[in-house]
Amino acid sequence: MVDVAREGSVVRITMNRAAKRNALSAEHLSELLDAFREVRTSDAAGIVLAAEGPVFSAGHDFADVHARDEEGVRLLLELCTVLMKTIQSAPQVVIARVQGLATAAGCQLVASCDLAVAADTAGFSLPGGKAGWFCHTPAVPVARSIGRKRLMELVLTGDVIDAATAVEWGLINRAVPAGELDAATDELLARATRGSRASKAIGKRTIYAQLDRPEIDGYEIALSVMAETSQSPSAKEGRASFLEKRQPVWPD
Amino acid sequence: MVDVAREGSVVRITMNRAAKRNALSAEHLSELLDAFREVRTSDAAGIVLAAEGPVFSAGHDFADVHARDEEGVRLLLELCTVLMKTIQSAPQVVIARVQGLATAAGCQLVASCDLAVAADTAGFSLPGGKAGWFCHTPAVPVARSIGRKRLMELVLTGDVIDAATAVEWGLINRAVPAGELDAATDELLARATRGSRASKAIGKRTIYAQLDRPEIDGYEIALSVMAETSQSPSAKEGRASFLEKRQPVWPD
Amino acid sequence: MVDVAREGSVVRITMNRAAKRNALSAEHLSELLDAFREVRTSDAAGIVLAAEGPVFSAGHDFADVHARDEEGVRLLLELCTVLMKTIQSAPQVVIARVQGLATAAGCQLVASCDLAVAADTAGFSLPGGKAGWFCHTPAVPVARSIGRKRLMELVLTGDVIDAATAVEWGLINRAVPAGELDAATDELLARATRGSRASKAIGKRTIYAQLDRPEIDGYEIALSVMAETSQSPSAKEGRASFLEKRQPVWPD
Repeated sequence: MVDVAREGSVVRITMNRAAKRNALSAEHLSELLDAFREVRTSDAAGIVLAAEGPVFSAGHDFADVHARDEEGVRLLLELCTVLMKTIQSAPQVVIARVQGLATAAGCQLVASCDLAVAADTAGFSLPGGKAGWFCHTPAVPVARSIGRKRLMELVLTGDVIDAATAVEWGLINRAVPAGELDAATDELLARATRGSRASKAIGKRTIYAQLDRPEIDGYEIALSVMAETSQSPSAKEGRASFLEKRQPVWPD
Repeated sequence: MVDVAREGSVVRITMNRAAKRNALSAEHLSELLDAFREVRTSDAAGIVLAAEGPVFSAGHDFADVHARDEEGVRLLLELCTVLMKTIQSAPQVVIARVQGLATAAGCQLVASCDLAVAADTAGFSLPGGKAGWFCHTPAVPVARSIGRKRLMELVLTGDVIDAATAVEWGLINRAVPAGELDAATDELLARATRGSRASKAIGKRTIYAQLDRPEIDGYEIALSVMAETSQSPSAKEGRASFLEKRQPVWPD
Repeated sequence: MVDVAREGSVVRITMNRAAKRNALSAEHLSELLDAFREVRTSDAAGIVLAAEGPVFSAGHDFADVHARDEEGVRLLLELCTVLMKTIQSAPQVVIARVQGLATAAGCQLVASCDLAVAADTAGFSLPGGKAGWFCHTPAVPVARSIGRKRLMELVLTGDVIDAATAVEWGLINRAVPAGELDAATDELLARATRGSRASKAIGKRTIYAQLDRPEIDGYEIALSVMAETSQSPSAKEGRASFLEKRQPVWPD
């Protein structure tokens, strides 16, 4: 139920479980995780996370959750969290292509991708609080993307915000007419994957490591990585080509 | 000087000290704290924090502060901080209804409520730095609601921003014409209090616990709570009613 | 290559290395650091950080970096970080006057100033990822000024955002027509330096100390400082003048 297709340096991972609104059952999470793990080790530069059907993802599959006891739910949530961290630690730039509604853990997926472009008909919600449970874990990356009052509005009301509001709040990068979604996604990803793949991979990981910490701790992490990577082949080539006024040839 | 009135599932706590611009003397803080503590143990689902007169709250009462030594001021600030934390840990959804100027600890009150709606004639400021002291503690929740450059502008200039700017910066959720303030406040609170009260109460507390920490620590907190609450009566009813395609009946 | 000029209570520190796009060589960083260290001990209330030429600052000087080994780069980055921290710990309010492009460590400079005003023709970028290295340390203060998705767009694409976008994202406070840049900078700085210099100095430092930490830790830091400073001459004068309905005379 997950399609993986490569075009040039980009791999497209598509949730293809439209009849179930791309709900994240344990099986579907495992398939997504397998797909990301496989692409990680490839030489691809970018990953598009897309979905078939009118809904991007409805989040956890209630049929799956309902059959589980607390320990079973914990295992499911741990699997879900591993997927989110795998997206962030992937050496590729990961962009969400959001064609429809992204709710609960589906919204968490969007928040966990490095970049996100949505059709202006898409919507975003954290509806758990309306449904007797609560979007505790989906709120984790969403809280780190948007402001506190807006987060509270999302988790307490459970209502859907539209794509334009999601841009304004910083949850996604762009909202475009549905017919331009592929072009806008590809354009942003192309700009985000220029240059040395190796330096982007380390850069992305260092960003996630230094975020949401006191600034002094952020500097501690970032400064060491920046000094270490200063002697990498791609960093040397970048400086040399600049100083020699020629096009760089990336070694990695 | 604090009125408490219940209508249906909502309690309205009103600062009624307009002649003193609803300044937060030790006595007024204690009355507010008593009011919140009383409502906490009730079965109310939502709390509106409102104010009488042209000013929402002018912050600490200088007459009260001026008579105190350092230890006395410390006690006053601790009392004030306990009020802010009591608002955040209340099981009810707390919404500020801001009809006028909210300055210093008055602005802190707004930042500490879960949600906030203001009349478009309201204003917000952290003026301590203009007055020889500094809004050190009011800046704590404000800093966690808006961006750094905007925070610096507020605390360094001490000037008032209008309600539209406060919405844009994420300090409040809505600005509406004064005549629509009650309707807009009630409408947002009604949407924010649907569903199981028990799950919202745990949800709200977990959000405040996981905010402003590295994402990995946020997941640690949220994942445990989400697994534990998965077996609560309201979570089970939410999933069962969804799977059985019927209206839920919340047990709590 | 750094000009220091005092007018009234304001010191203007100007990067005057336009031929090198005000690139931050070790020498230029040292000169800037010396300038800030000298002003810190003066009785100035505000500092304008400005630049000559079409570019505000192009960041690190590749000619300088390229000659260094890892340990040499580490020393350079440590020097750069000390400059950023010196700006934040200065008792004066520091405002960036951004007349042109601010890239990499030049953008970091803007993010590290307390306030920033830009010409609407200015631009901001973190282009390291396009150049084989990565803007690891510049991303540290930028990440603490803007949202996560926007940060990722900046560091991954390396592309320039214009001044209006920088305002919208919270990276700077204002964008104005180039002809109004000085007036707008001076106006904001004048409002930000009113009142007691001593209380602003402590206020600014306390803000940076309490930011980016869990709220409870922020309160711990801010509450102690607020109680201690409540008995300062300027705090007492502020309250006394308010209660006596007269203009304050700041003792510091």
